[in-house]
Amino acid sequence: MGLLPDAPHRRLNRLTGEWVQVSPHRTARPWQGQIEETTPEKRPEYDPSCYLCPGNTRAGGVHTPVYDSTYVFDNDFAALLPDASGGGVDDGLLVARPERGICRVVCLSPRHDLTLGDMPLADVRTVVDTWAAQTASLGALDWVSHVQIFENRGAMMGASNPHPHGQIWATESLPNEPAKELAQQATYEGACLLCDYLAAELKDGSRIVDTNEQFVSLVPFWAVWPFETLVLPRAHHGALTDLGDADRDGLADVLGKVTRRYDRLFGITFPYSMGFHQRPTDGGEHPKSHLHAHFYPPLLRSATIRKFMVGFELLAGPQRDITPESAAQRLRDLDND
Amino acid sequence: MGLLPDAPHRRLNRLTGEWVQVSPHRTARPWQGQIEETTPEKRPEYDPSCYLCPGNTRAGGVHTPVYDSTYVFDNDFAALLPDASGGGVDDGLLVARPERGICRVVCLSPRHDLTLGDMPLADVRTVVDTWAAQTASLGALDWVSHVQIFENRGAMMGASNPHPHGQIWATESLPNEPAKELAQQATYEGACLLCDYLAAELKDGSRIVDTNEQFVSLVPFWAVWPFETLVLPRAHHGALTDLGDADRDGLADVLGKVTRRYDRLFGITFPYSMGFHQRPTDGGEHPKSHLHAHFYPPLLRSATIRKFMVGFELLAGPQRDITPESAAQRLRDLDND
Ligand SMILES: O=P(O)(O)O[C@H]1O[C@H](CO)[C@@H](O)[C@H](O)[C@H]1O
Ligand SMILES: O=P(O)(O)O[C@H]1O[C@H](CO)[C@@H](O)[C@H](O)[C@H]1O
Repeated sequence: MGLLPDAPHRRLNRLTGEWVQVSPHRTARPWQGQIEETTPEKRPEYDPSCYLCPGNTRAGGVHTPVYDSTYVFDNDFAALLPDASGGGVDDGLLVARPERGICRVVCLSPRHDLTLGDMPLADVRTVVDTWAAQTASLGALDWVSHVQIFENRGAMMGASNPHPHGQIWATESLPNEPAKELAQQATYEGACLLCDYLAAELKDGSRIVDTNEQFVSLVPFWAVWPFETLVLPRAHHGALTDLGDADRDGLADVLGKVTRRYDRLFGITFPYSMGFHQRPTDGGEHPKSHLHAHFYPPLLRSATIRKFMVGFELLAGPQRDITPESAAQRLRDLDND
Repeated sequence: MGLLPDAPHRRLNRLTGEWVQVSPHRTARPWQGQIEETTPEKRPEYDPSCYLCPGNTRAGGVHTPVYDSTYVFDNDFAALLPDASGGGVDDGLLVARPERGICRVVCLSPRHDLTLGDMPLADVRTVVDTWAAQTASLGALDWVSHVQIFENRGAMMGASNPHPHGQIWATESLPNEPAKELAQQATYEGACLLCDYLAAELKDGSRIVDTNEQFVSLVPFWAVWPFETLVLPRAHHGALTDLGDADRDGLADVLGKVTRRYDRLFGITFPYSMGFHQRPTDGGEHPKSHLHAHFYPPLLRSATIRKFMVGFELLAGPQRDITPESAAQRLRDLDND
């Protein structure tokens, strides 16, 4: 492309319609700011004080059963509740509405010491099946418009417990981020924005991280977080529930690969928030909606130096310090097995 | 209003058009996650190792002069540069453009140990004058469309040096956040969205924090961060450059008040990112654009427990755990002098 690789520029996030400022020359700046603590790496297979380990007691005295696969339960401290209550307001300036939802916790493994990257492939496949089954059952509720599956990994990303677990928040309304992406996909002039984007990325090659027959992981052209990745099915699938047997194996495989690369980048269990965007469950068809997962990892320079999304980023817009192409190159240079 | 105060609901940010999920019942949840370090509170008036203290040497051997008021200089590690270079790309999916900008650092005081909240009022007024003068001179450059003034305070907010300082990033393009706010203001059916909003808030009273003759600080109805505030002139001013003498005194006064309340909330120098949104300098009139400052402080429960904007927040939309009304009440209950 015609850009000088180290000149400051803006890139358009085609999926949201928003811009990111890229400042590749800026990594030279010295860092005297906050240094993160690294959490001790060696965890036991079972931790008697962990409320997510099989057989232990959770807040409020609830018992976690002795599970041996994935295990899903309703969050004891749910941010959303299934019962509608209260009225709303709308005077044109102050606008509020009651909002129903269901919040669940998904223990990815009974083992306290494993992560998506070191679980056996068959167990990651079970996680994929669990996510798909949850999407189906929550999405089938007539008032649920959107099923948000996500994982906050690491204390730096607000995880309150190191046991491998993710969450699912099913909501009555379509949230901001999927709404933006849906609008961009719906107004795309071709058949599918992400199908065409994936074809362009595969042709270019410079931002691809891993591929298999069904899935591709890449650092998006418009990545905000230093080592952000996007995971996409090659075929036009709208939701996890659309994936067949081979697709699910392909997704499990690519998730293992990208997280193992992450863990090798700075030699720690790489913190991130990740999650899926899929077709809303509001009853609409959404034929142009293309399933994908975003990984948003905060680390920039080392295990202890993160990217802060603060002043300019919060008030104006995101800014990144390394190019997506160089991030992809660094991830590709690591082993994925 | 008709909402049950502790029922989960969504509120519309009228200024951006985006929603925030409010989950007031959720503060009961136990926290076993990350605990922030508190930085030692007592700083010297002058720190020989601080590159922002008067007379010291910065990166690259540049000398900081012996200044005795505010002091502005071009950032030695600017994210944006004033010289355009490189071409762009735009194939409809991969879209990038060179972006020019100027990044400056504003030392708020020569004293290493002071903050906006404990500087004498006259010195905060000097800071206001400096911000206005920078807005005028940067905005006068024909290629500068937007002047973003901000301060990242505290290691938790990515500040790389505890010396009281803010930044200014003047850019060729209008960034995402002001663009959203500008669009909402421009399409508002009345004369000014924020004038009407301020009148509604003054009438209601429950979210007001401080007032003086010229300015008001309040926790916005749609606040995302636990103790977020919005600072507004009562009169319809579009930019810092429009403020007269009394307005500038009023702004200095209200900034001192809100930051002193913040510092008393958990007994530490309260971390935050803050910044101004003002009329773009792109040559347009923007008659409906109303000057304001946002304060985005991350702390939630104590000096060491922050709100994490992670999985659901990054992938779906913001979520808060206490109501804006209760946050305003807690701030009002503290002294502001
Ligand atoms: O320029 P500073 O203070 O070194 O850097 C800080 O503020 C910038 C602007 O918000 C951010 O991009 C950086 O991530 C943050 O560490
Ligand atoms: O529900 P958890 O894991 O306790 O909480 C974590 O994830 C939530 C969803 O992203 C966030 O709202 C919280 O700030 C974060 O600490």
